[in-house]
Amino acid sequence: MNDTSHTARLLVACPDDKGLVAEITRFIADRGGNILDLDQHTDPDDCMFFARVVFDLHGLNLSMDAFILQWNTLADQHEMTWRIHDASQHRRIAILVGKTDHCLREILWRWEDGELPCDIPFVAGNHDDLSPLATRYGLPFHTLPVDASSRRVQEYQIETLIQQHHVDLIVLARYMQILTPEFVSHFPNRIINIHHSFLPAFAGAKPYHQAHRRGVKLIGATCHFVTDDLDAGPIIEQATARVGHRDTLADLIRKGKDLERSALMTGLQLQLEDRIIVHGNRTVVFE
Amino acid sequence: MNDTSHTARLLVACPDDKGLVAEITRFIADRGGNILDLDQHTDPDDCMFFARVVFDLHGLNLSMDAFILQWNTLADQHEMTWRIHDASQHRRIAILVGKTDHCLREILWRWEDGELPCDIPFVAGNHDDLSPLATRYGLPFHTLPVDASSRRVQEYQIETLIQQHHVDLIVLARYMQILTPEFVSHFPNRIINIHHSFLPAFAGAKPYHQAHRRGVKLIGATCHFVTDDLDAGPIIEQATARVGHRDTLADLIRKGKDLERSALMTGLQLQLEDRIIVHGNRTVVFE
Amino acid sequence: MNDTSHTARLLVACPDDKGLVAEITRFIADRGGNILDLDQHTDPDDCMFFARVVFDLHGLNLSMDAFILQWNTLADQHEMTWRIHDASQHRRIAILVGKTDHCLREILWRWEDGELPCDIPFVAGNHDDLSPLATRYGLPFHTLPVDASSRRVQEYQIETLIQQHHVDLIVLARYMQILTPEFVSHFPNRIINIHHSFLPAFAGAKPYHQAHRRGVKLIGATCHFVTDDLDAGPIIEQATARVGHRDTLADLIRKGKDLERSALMTGLQLQLEDRIIVHGNRTVVFE
Amino acid sequence: MNDTSHTARLLVACPDDKGLVAEITRFIADRGGNILDLDQHTDPDDCMFFARVVFDLHGLNLSMDAFILQWNTLADQHEMTWRIHDASQHRRIAILVGKTDHCLREILWRWEDGELPCDIPFVAGNHDDLSPLATRYGLPFHTLPVDASSRRVQEYQIETLIQQHHVDLIVLARYMQILTPEFVSHFPNRIINIHHSFLPAFAGAKPYHQAHRRGVKLIGATCHFVTDDLDAGPIIEQATARVGHRDTLADLIRKGKDLERSALMTGLQLQLEDRIIVHGNRTVVFE
Repeated sequence: MNDTSHTARLLVACPDDKGLVAEITRFIADRGGNILDLDQHTDPDDCMFFARVVFDLHGLNLSMDAFILQWNTLADQHEMTWRIHDASQHRRIAILVGKTDHCLREILWRWEDGELPCDIPFVAGNHDDLSPLATRYGLPFHTLPVDASSRRVQEYQIETLIQQHHVDLIVLARYMQILTPEFVSHFPNRIINIHHSFLPAFAGAKPYHQAHRRGVKLIGATCHFVTDDLDAGPIIEQATARVGHRDTLADLIRKGKDLERSALMTGLQLQLEDRIIVHGNRTVVFE
Repeated sequence: MNDTSHTARLLVACPDDKGLVAEITRFIADRGGNILDLDQHTDPDDCMFFARVVFDLHGLNLSMDAFILQWNTLADQHEMTWRIHDASQHRRIAILVGKTDHCLREILWRWEDGELPCDIPFVAGNHDDLSPLATRYGLPFHTLPVDASSRRVQEYQIETLIQQHHVDLIVLARYMQILTPEFVSHFPNRIINIHHSFLPAFAGAKPYHQAHRRGVKLIGATCHFVTDDLDAGPIIEQATARVGHRDTLADLIRKGKDLERSALMTGLQLQLEDRIIVHGNRTVVFE
Repeated sequence: MNDTSHTARLLVACPDDKGLVAEITRFIADRGGNILDLDQHTDPDDCMFFARVVFDLHGLNLSMDAFILQWNTLADQHEMTWRIHDASQHRRIAILVGKTDHCLREILWRWEDGELPCDIPFVAGNHDDLSPLATRYGLPFHTLPVDASSRRVQEYQIETLIQQHHVDLIVLARYMQILTPEFVSHFPNRIINIHHSFLPAFAGAKPYHQAHRRGVKLIGATCHFVTDDLDAGPIIEQATARVGHRDTLADLIRKGKDLERSALMTGLQLQLEDRIIVHGNRTVVFE
Repeated sequence: MNDTSHTARLLVACPDDKGLVAEITRFIADRGGNILDLDQHTDPDDCMFFARVVFDLHGLNLSMDAFILQWNTLADQHEMTWRIHDASQHRRIAILVGKTDHCLREILWRWEDGELPCDIPFVAGNHDDLSPLATRYGLPFHTLPVDASSRRVQEYQIETLIQQHHVDLIVLARYMQILTPEFVSHFPNRIINIHHSFLPAFAGAKPYHQAHRRGVKLIGATCHFVTDDLDAGPIIEQATARVGHRDTLADLIRKGKDLERSALMTGLQLQLEDRIIVHGNRTVVFE
């Protein structure tokens, strides 16, 4: 981690081409940006180029708007998918929860501790169990109950909140509802979920029950982006822990909590530091 | 690990009952056996009792045959499934292979090194690629080609070898053929396989290809007993390792080799030390 | 983990002897105790016998006091060091802290969550920074400042609190003061510390600074009992995590926090479940 | 891992300066080199710049000699320490051994398997125990006994062999002799050792004995460059594994073997792929 004051982070994905790194780095250097960190990867399978460039904005000899305008020309030439982010600008995240508190607790704690560079305009849940926890950290909590008949209505309430609060990223911190394709389609690669299994094993409901029945010797947790396809979106981070025959289902759930906290926090931190590029159904993660 | 000269290992599974540990340990002590190691577990879900008892045979005041005769009475009272093994008697294992050498190499190396307490009467493969490797360690190698039409014929050849050589345990060291239910039924809980994925994820063919396509961040290997149900038998041991976007399919295969070697060796060693009880489709592993 | 209502846990250490397990288990069975879990180990180096026995108290046909009286006779015969604990009786722990909150937070959270079977009569610190956190969980916080001249006076205040509150176990949750030999001698094997390094590497002050300077590729945390010898007491649990050249000192400290939380919680839980026997400067941990 | 035919790897360390990445990448692009992989890091503590650039030589519009000549000018301007390596040219490594075979076995196996891109002109040992193993792989083995009085003489024999065979890298695969400062000074950052502990814990002789006595719950292995200071050179890779009270000294040694193999192979592979820059007593490892 570098000091993030006055630095920009640029993420680029495009078809590979000769001299691309040189062109990108020269572009930045010519405009007075000093590159602090550069990580680049070319996928040999489909000849795609991926890069993350962090550069110092202190010496930039033009405005950020002008920089972006000029960058667009270069980006178009190379058919780039790209985004740039001023590291001093906090992302705004909304957290959706159910009744289970450990993931929300971990996020709020680290956020209060200054480890998570983001703003949290609100927490919402389909139950009100975690309202006191959010309140304890001074955050508004919206209780938005949902059942099969009210799903789209409730999601519309969430969407409205998200728009009102200019939310960049939605974190499902053990929110146990399945979002509709409509909802998901509005936030591509902007919804992060924690699933309590080592995906693709034990997708769907009650993964610890499935794991216990199968008699696995390792349990896992997976942080991933949400897509239409249940528990099948691009994976960001996975963690595993040993279990044995002495571990009851309750033990699996208890040990799994630690994995979920860890995998979700790692995934969230990576996204807040602009270290993830989604390509197809996979992720490039610049660590 | 204890010194194994003149010790016996007793494995017991039965419905739980009051005073069972006392009864078992008293039985052994009364006959002059000194218990060196005892591990016991009662499964709260189905009230089953499992125990592994290691005891010194030096002071045993009757023959092993007489001991077993008397033990049978106790065992019947409690509907025990049990087995006893004189640790100084080497198990006899047969190894089946295909073209891939890393698992066979690891087994032979450790065996030569004295780490694996077993005899290896032969190695057999459906290809002859690994014949030189077996020969290097002074082991007979049987090439038994197989195709769809000859499957049972070939398996019959293997079964014949197994009987001739009094084989206790069959190890599939990356043997890529699917055994028929007939074959499997002859060796219940006596065939150990290494599958190159974190089961139940990526069962079946080409698991590394599946894992690469899915974009997982951890790959795995699973050592399990073979049952009729492909890659679904009782799991003995699992291992995982981190992979990232820079890892090509070839890298996954290369990194996976180390996991396979490690998980297979652990599983094999556990079985050779009589540390595994199969119960339903799960294992109790006394470590 | 088993249901802890009406069960007792017995820990035994003594010179090994023939038939010891049988004698112990028969003793319990004869008095109506049903053994739920038994783990036993004989150290081949010094011929010491260690056992942990969990048994059901429901059918016990005498009072606990009478049981212990009779047990004493057996224990004396075998020169046992032993203790027995009724699992339904919560241990009472006191927590000492400095200014750093992550370990205290983790303890209080899990305690509130019901994962830690103990009572916490008070938290004390040489600074008052964490007073609000303790208060939030409804716990009394005692601020007891200390400097070189007042050390024994302050420790005496702590000892008084410990006696008043019948404290069984003292947890140093990043309490950065070195306790005097006098204090330590009053609580043998009853003070648990978390040291922020992989001991014996980087004992003493500022271990992350030491680790960063040395350029290690793994950092660690160690949970241990406190003895006179600084950071050299019996080790209960250790954990490590990968670091690299990109990790600054601040990153090491941040990543280390997670290790400290994890190692301390594991150690504390093991002790609360009576799974640890200290023997010399080492621990036997029944997992 | 990329295809290594016709690619060059450039490693650079120098004081940080604005536009350095741009300058380097432009330099390569202007001469027809297509950058395949670039990893760069700026150390915020001492403002040093480190980079690893892999580029395609196919389109290079001048000879490698001419390229290097021109590069020298740029390198001098920035006070660079650098090296460039044609990935198709195998490094030449010499392996020194004692009596223990597991590290040598692992190297030779992977080398035969094509995983280690290097030539091995010879293996040498102060004992002849491993001569048959080297011979089995078709490698010359030199037995060079040593005692206190003959140390420099024996080292001179090794140095002569190294010169005769144009050796680039010396691997100590459990070579249990302490090399003299004279010897070490001739091969700065060119001698890789595997130490069987988690350094800096348990430096020096018999680390597993030390670890067993201390009662640690994790053992480790460390791969590092050799310097004058015993077991204190720059660390390349470390690995750890859990141990418990049941593990005897023999178990620690057995489990440690796997760690040693793994850490040494990782370290060796990193060096053969030009992924390590030594800076002071630490390493920058581009993974």
